[in-house]
Amino acid sequence: MSDRPKTPLLDRVHIPADMKNFSDAELIQLAHELRAETVSAVSVTGGHLGAGLGVVELTVGLHAVFDTPRDQLIWDVSHQCYPHKILTGRRDRIRTLRQKDGLSGFTKRKESPYDPFGAAHSSTSISAALGLATARDLGAKGVGDCIAVIGDGSMSAGMAYEAMNNAGHMGNRLIVILNDNEMSIAPPTGAMSNYLSRLYAEAPIQDLAQVAKDAVRLLPPPFQEGAKRARDLIKHSVIGHGTLFEELGFSYIGPIDGHDLNQILPVLRSVKARANGPVLIHAITKKGKGYAPAEDSADRGHARARFDVVTGKQQKPPSNAPSYTKVFAQSLIDEASRDDDIVAVTAAMPDGTGLDLFAERFPERCFDVGIAEQHGVTFCAGIAAAGMKPFCAMYSTFLQRGYDQVVHDVAIQRLPVRFAIDRAGLVGADGPTHAGSFDIAFLANLPDMVVMAAADEAELVHMVATAVAIDDQPSAFRFPRGEGAGVEMPERGSPLEIGKGRMIREGKGVAILSFGARLSEVMVACENLGAYGLSPTVADARFAKPLDRDLVLRLAAEHEALITIEEGAIGGFGSHVAQCLADAGVFDTGLKFRSMVLPDTFQDQASPKDMYAAAAMNAPDIEAKVLEVLGVTRLEGSGRG
Amino acid sequence: MSDRPKTPLLDRVHIPADMKNFSDAELIQLAHELRAETVSAVSVTGGHLGAGLGVVELTVGLHAVFDTPRDQLIWDVSHQCYPHKILTGRRDRIRTLRQKDGLSGFTKRKESPYDPFGAAHSSTSISAALGLATARDLGAKGVGDCIAVIGDGSMSAGMAYEAMNNAGHMGNRLIVILNDNEMSIAPPTGAMSNYLSRLYAEAPIQDLAQVAKDAVRLLPPPFQEGAKRARDLIKHSVIGHGTLFEELGFSYIGPIDGHDLNQILPVLRSVKARANGPVLIHAITKKGKGYAPAEDSADRGHARARFDVVTGKQQKPPSNAPSYTKVFAQSLIDEASRDDDIVAVTAAMPDGTGLDLFAERFPERCFDVGIAEQHGVTFCAGIAAAGMKPFCAMYSTFLQRGYDQVVHDVAIQRLPVRFAIDRAGLVGADGPTHAGSFDIAFLANLPDMVVMAAADEAELVHMVATAVAIDDQPSAFRFPRGEGAGVEMPERGSPLEIGKGRMIREGKGVAILSFGARLSEVMVACENLGAYGLSPTVADARFAKPLDRDLVLRLAAEHEALITIEEGAIGGFGSHVAQCLADAGVFDTGLKFRSMVLPDTFQDQASPKDMYAAAAMNAPDIEAKVLEVLGVTRLEGSGRG
Repeated sequence: MSDRPKTPLLDRVHIPADMKNFSDAELIQLAHELRAETVSAVSVTGGHLGAGLGVVELTVGLHAVFDTPRDQLIWDVSHQCYPHKILTGRRDRIRTLRQKDGLSGFTKRKESPYDPFGAAHSSTSISAALGLATARDLGAKGVGDCIAVIGDGSMSAGMAYEAMNNAGHMGNRLIVILNDNEMSIAPPTGAMSNYLSRLYAEAPIQDLAQVAKDAVRLLPPPFQEGAKRARDLIKHSVIGHGTLFEELGFSYIGPIDGHDLNQILPVLRSVKARANGPVLIHAITKKGKGYAPAEDSADRGHARARFDVVTGKQQKPPSNAPSYTKVFAQSLIDEASRDDDIVAVTAAMPDGTGLDLFAERFPERCFDVGIAEQHGVTFCAGIAAAGMKPFCAMYSTFLQRGYDQVVHDVAIQRLPVRFAIDRAGLVGADGPTHAGSFDIAFLANLPDMVVMAAADEAELVHMVATAVAIDDQPSAFRFPRGEGAGVEMPERGSPLEIGKGRMIREGKGVAILSFGARLSEVMVACENLGAYGLSPTVADARFAKPLDRDLVLRLAAEHEALITIEEGAIGGFGSHVAQCLADAGVFDTGLKFRSMVLPDTFQDQASPKDMYAAAAMNAPDIEAKVLEVLGVTRLEGSGRG
Repeated sequence: MSDRPKTPLLDRVHIPADMKNFSDAELIQLAHELRAETVSAVSVTGGHLGAGLGVVELTVGLHAVFDTPRDQLIWDVSHQCYPHKILTGRRDRIRTLRQKDGLSGFTKRKESPYDPFGAAHSSTSISAALGLATARDLGAKGVGDCIAVIGDGSMSAGMAYEAMNNAGHMGNRLIVILNDNEMSIAPPTGAMSNYLSRLYAEAPIQDLAQVAKDAVRLLPPPFQEGAKRARDLIKHSVIGHGTLFEELGFSYIGPIDGHDLNQILPVLRSVKARANGPVLIHAITKKGKGYAPAEDSADRGHARARFDVVTGKQQKPPSNAPSYTKVFAQSLIDEASRDDDIVAVTAAMPDGTGLDLFAERFPERCFDVGIAEQHGVTFCAGIAAAGMKPFCAMYSTFLQRGYDQVVHDVAIQRLPVRFAIDRAGLVGADGPTHAGSFDIAFLANLPDMVVMAAADEAELVHMVATAVAIDDQPSAFRFPRGEGAGVEMPERGSPLEIGKGRMIREGKGVAILSFGARLSEVMVACENLGAYGLSPTVADARFAKPLDRDLVLRLAAEHEALITIEEGAIGGFGSHVAQCLADAGVFDTGLKFRSMVLPDTFQDQASPKDMYAAAAMNAPDIEAKVLEVLGVTRLEGSGRG
């Protein structure tokens, strides 16, 4: 507590209205204090650091000029929202960021009226802002200006283009701040990124006469505060450039220096006073700005564990087992070293998916398509149509973005695209928006799709090999966030028999059929159940599709009870098992069948272990489920651990 | 047969190679014959007429200049592929288009090697072509030039932008033909459409010196065939314009007259000879071109029932019941007449969703966002966040495009967006790409989502009213393609009790719990089962979520057998019922439970009735299922009707 930064001005700001009579000089000082407070808070909690530091001045400027929460400020992705949270009544809880029962790491409607539209996936902000603006213009109460702040990386997503295309056509008053830090999560990719760089590079050589002419309708009258600075700004920058955005129907202002409130404030005031349609303000910022250890790092401080403020050194917990992500990457590299047809595709997540390692080894066979999952999936389908072996590496939650492409371009055509699905199941601090809950259900009901889940990191190695081998139909394998179970690793992967599970232990009375990484919890539960004289049979299904019918029916025939468990929502593995049992008439004569799935709620962030406890899917819950199904009374002192 | 057009040149073309020694004059004549044959064929089969007529010359030109199937020709959406099918070995079957066991109305990989990448949803072609080109450049065998033909409407989809953004960055040789007919399915919308119109309008005033300069790298040498025409072309058109596409990294050529082979052929030859990166050829065409009854109609002959070639008059079957689409539209209009907060959103399907009627009555409250489902869903979420009542009207299959937005922007935020899901279940002639099979599964496992299905058109009226009333969480209601059951209609809709089904008939022994429009087939089956002395109980669940647990458990308790049926794939309603029964321990003591769902296959087109017969979900199949479950021997002469 004692080493917290001194923040005399910030201490006076409990809500944005408290800044209304600050002078511009005070706002600049406020930004310094806000930056220091942001660094201090994230040093305690860990989280997304660089993005917030890059928008400190924009945050101050927007709240100073506009009347939030009536004016609707929408942060795209919103991992840059920590300074915004500090200014909007949540400073007292800012050191609970991303913790259980703490503040979300993203904007969230139910957390604050200053978060009119939550986010965590990218490129939704313009659509949401246009919806709000449209409702306002139809008479909806309490909606003022609608402002989307969107990064240049998010501009590679088609959704942002769809929204701009529609907004330019509709013509509602709408403000888009393009926060151009030339670095979203990964280094930028795509032609749009090059275009933005050119806008920046070309800015100084613009014809000022033309600039002034174009600017007229947006400039404040000469007597208004800020006019001089606005005119100065024009001399150094450009208004009326940005052809591409203007062709889409937006007024374009910029580029401006997004860290200079002497530029930001007059531009925002002008836009507020004069905008009569969609306006795009192009602000150049620097991710990690103002904190040297972030600015100097390769990822500009994108995501950080707790760290020391002075040195920037992170306190990462010691790790014994390799992460699933790394095991996937190394396995794919190993396979690709023997098979020239293997290529890998990521949608702007080379680090998160481990494909940065693959790209180091095979740069010509690794493709980052940008934040563009729709395109990424069909791009893979095209590669598969040419006879090569694409691995489409995406998080479960982001694969939702390419769902129609999975159905229409991959599954219907039975093209052998391999989906490597990271972050399956509950993911911890990123909360409900990043949970990988639905992929089993939305993939396993697609004809011709093979759906696997890895019970541990050794299984993952084999599933990569299996996916390589499946060359006549699409396949998917899912694996969780975080570290593996620490099992012995095979020297190399061996293709599994398609649609066959494996017995883990033969027991009696009750069988537990696990799909995915809950298996280790199942094994702990079985240990504990020994105290009751129970010895469950345990099997690892490996495949949700094709389902191992023989295994399912044998387990049903030989046991009084059958329990399935999976790290996914209803409609997936357990539902396929139930359908199999029903079709075979097993229920006709009775079977104590239960399916343990994620609960019917969007769970707030906590550690993965705590989230699975809340979901009632840890070892004590499995133990309790077995006892309940068998009608065994629980021993004194046992229960949820 | 006798009134078929005379087609002497076309008769010599069995595959595109047969055109290789045709002169340009012969190719022009071939195009005339191909157009006549297309009109003749569609007059017999019905189908998409206007789109094919608009690309007759492009089809001839592409197959004449390029070496298909080695050169990969990808038609976006591909409803314009009939002329292509006629030229590529399928003329003998062209009068089976869209019929059972006939040619698909779309391109299809398994139908022909000349269809390297099938389609039916829009805006996938550039991604697929880029995937193929990338594989080619990595050494994939048998892949030549990769050519995407994409309409201006498809350009409003973000996926096309994502693909261009990536293609411009990667720089592979790739050819995109922008087929600009200023009319996709509906009149165009969006800023991109305006931009394209401006390109066209501005074309004549281009600076020819600049044009010639920019054109140099793509022009053939002076001695090459076509050079003179290419030079003539420049005088009347533009090369080097199209800033927006050039900013994205494409070489831009156009606009050219897409019905003038004297322009098309030299441009294609030049591009084939010289392209060394991504090229976009902007061709202006006219939907329905060359057939007056199509050209003169409002939709330019988009989709047609069988018709008389001379008059264009369509032979539509007489209809007794109103279509579900129309019932939806009229119900929504009725509700909106009493509630100013209701707005309606379509993604480029105003006619298909019935919102054209809504727009006539409430033009200011109806929004067509273009082919942009991702944006459309989140746009609705923004409208809901402002307190209004958006109805997001999309086909089931197209809602897949906005799936992540349904999860991330609507469900997680619990925003009351109303999803009006048309074309639920099997859809007939449009085949597997348009089947609405997966929405129950992918919606009903989302927390806080209400999911309804209409058993008949009167139920639909009430579900619209119910959706209006549900203002604190998202809701969806699905209804099939085609005509209603002809039931008596209520004067106006009344909100249903959330999560409550209804009893249709009280019987005994077996209960059938129906979700959606299979109910009429269930009732027919029950009639027939009377011959066996059986009187099933029938209930309409109305809601898949929240599930009517009381009803489910009561039916289970009071009957020997319980059968669910739904027009959807596994993982949906039946799976939720199974989970409910398992959780309640009903299976512990035995219940003959069956869940009738769509089969695990992508079904080829046929009539909806035939498709449901193939799916084993018509009355005779339900009857058979009841008999099988109860172990009753089938009577002589009964069975699948």
